Amino acid sequence: MTNQVLRELEERMSVRLFDCRPVSEEIKRTLFHAAFQAPTAGCQQLYTILDITDPALKRELADICDHQSFIASAPVVLIFLADCRRWLDSYREAGCQARRPGPGDLLLAMADACIAAQNTVTAAHSLGLGSCYIGDILEQCERTRDLLCLPEETVPAAMLVIGWPKETKNARTKPGRADQSYIVHENRYRLLSGQEHREMIQSTGRCQPDYDSWMSAFCRRKYESDFSREMSRSASVYLRPFLQEE
Amino acid sequence: MTNQVLRELEERMSVRLFDCRPVSEEIKRTLFHAAFQAPTAGCQQLYTILDITDPALKRELADICDHQSFIASAPVVLIFLADCRRWLDSYREAGCQARRPGPGDLLLAMADACIAAQNTVTAAHSLGLGSCYIGDILEQCERTRDLLCLPEETVPAAMLVIGWPKETKNARTKPGRADQSYIVHENRYRLLSGQEHREMIQSTGRCQPDYDSWMSAFCRRKYESDFSREMSRSASVYLRPFLQEE
Repeated sequence: MTNQVLRELEERMSVRLFDCRPVSEEIKRTLFHAAFQAPTAGCQQLYTILDITDPALKRELADICDHQSFIASAPVVLIFLADCRRWLDSYREAGCQARRPGPGDLLLAMADACIAAQNTVTAAHSLGLGSCYIGDILEQCERTRDLLCLPEETVPAAMLVIGWPKETKNARTKPGRADQSYIVHENRYRLLSGQEHREMIQSTGRCQPDYDSWMSAFCRRKYESDFSREMSRSASVYLRPFLQEE
Repeated sequence: MTNQVLRELEERMSVRLFDCRPVSEEIKRTLFHAAFQAPTAGCQQLYTILDITDPALKRELADICDHQSFIASAPVVLIFLADCRRWLDSYREAGCQARRPGPGDLLLAMADACIAAQNTVTAAHSLGLGSCYIGDILEQCERTRDLLCLPEETVPAAMLVIGWPKETKNARTKPGRADQSYIVHENRYRLLSGQEHREMIQSTGRCQPDYDSWMSAFCRRKYESDFSREMSRSASVYLRPFLQEE
């Protein structure tokens, strides 16, 4: 069972290396148009997209995002903000005494922003562009807020770098996904057995030389890393204004 | 500038009314496959998809989600959980003393789950299926956790209903999106002026009979509604375990 769209979703891979050709304004408008076509709660488009064109800002963002230098040289850098401020201002402009946004508003806006971002990724691929999400944009809240003039009712939900893929001799292969049986549960959540955890990682083709050593190294490198702890510290600062009682 | 993928992203509209033809297991596997092909942080697939097949559970979910009865009769009901539990268990199975997941882990998993959900929506449309997100799944945390056996390290990031669209005589038109100038900002966030708020809503084709009355009614019906306040109460319960200090 396949078709053009399914084939393109399958062949898309994250791309971090771009050649120096710029991405035209027309293409950017096409990408934003595709983002806007995504489903959005109550057609509210609870996001703002920052189109980072200033090279100095790109360099700062590369530094904020765990010093990933390819961000600084990416032709297009987009930040999808979960935006609980714009509607608040729209309400107030109409004279409404609107309440402060709460955690439900934020999570709904996070979903809206990520859904729009993924339409952008799919649209970019269809035009021959490569893209990559940068999760690290959640780090260093104070510095990012200051740099991008973020109101405290906004949170970076996703960041994308986009450009024309650099031709590479040895094309990467897409990392393997887990077997559906571990990720799709019928009706209710079920905890996996120890054996299933082992088989799941095996099903992705990782786990060299063996489960325990691969998993321990991954845990140290990803989950117990400085950047991961910083992400949670920073996220808690982003969340704070949404958790205040009225 | 267009192609098959861009046209399909554009023509997709939310569908809530389905005919009674079932969606085959093969199609569901195809949808999950497309979901899995989405970008995912460190290839971790930080989500679990609950495939709700039990009619009694669907009825309960329809009730939880602000009594939207079409949920109970939807052929496919999927809940995309941001899952910070599965990797924790994988780490522990390898003997790691892994820390409790924090808010950064949660927001990263929320993004992963929504990105995968949006691939599912795009794939469904390409197969002629209709779909709709149900934001209300964030409400009534306690009841949902109990019903679906959710560990406290998981949060529903998105819910989708999917099925074959019912033929309708008067096809809806897709709600208008705002003009890009209000949603896409260059380099830094900028607050819109009162006039811009008015023009933005005008650009979506809403605002009948005038801005102030349309916006005030929308604010009452959506933002100041009981379901919206419940969503934030419930979301704060979901967030609590992620905010505890080690």
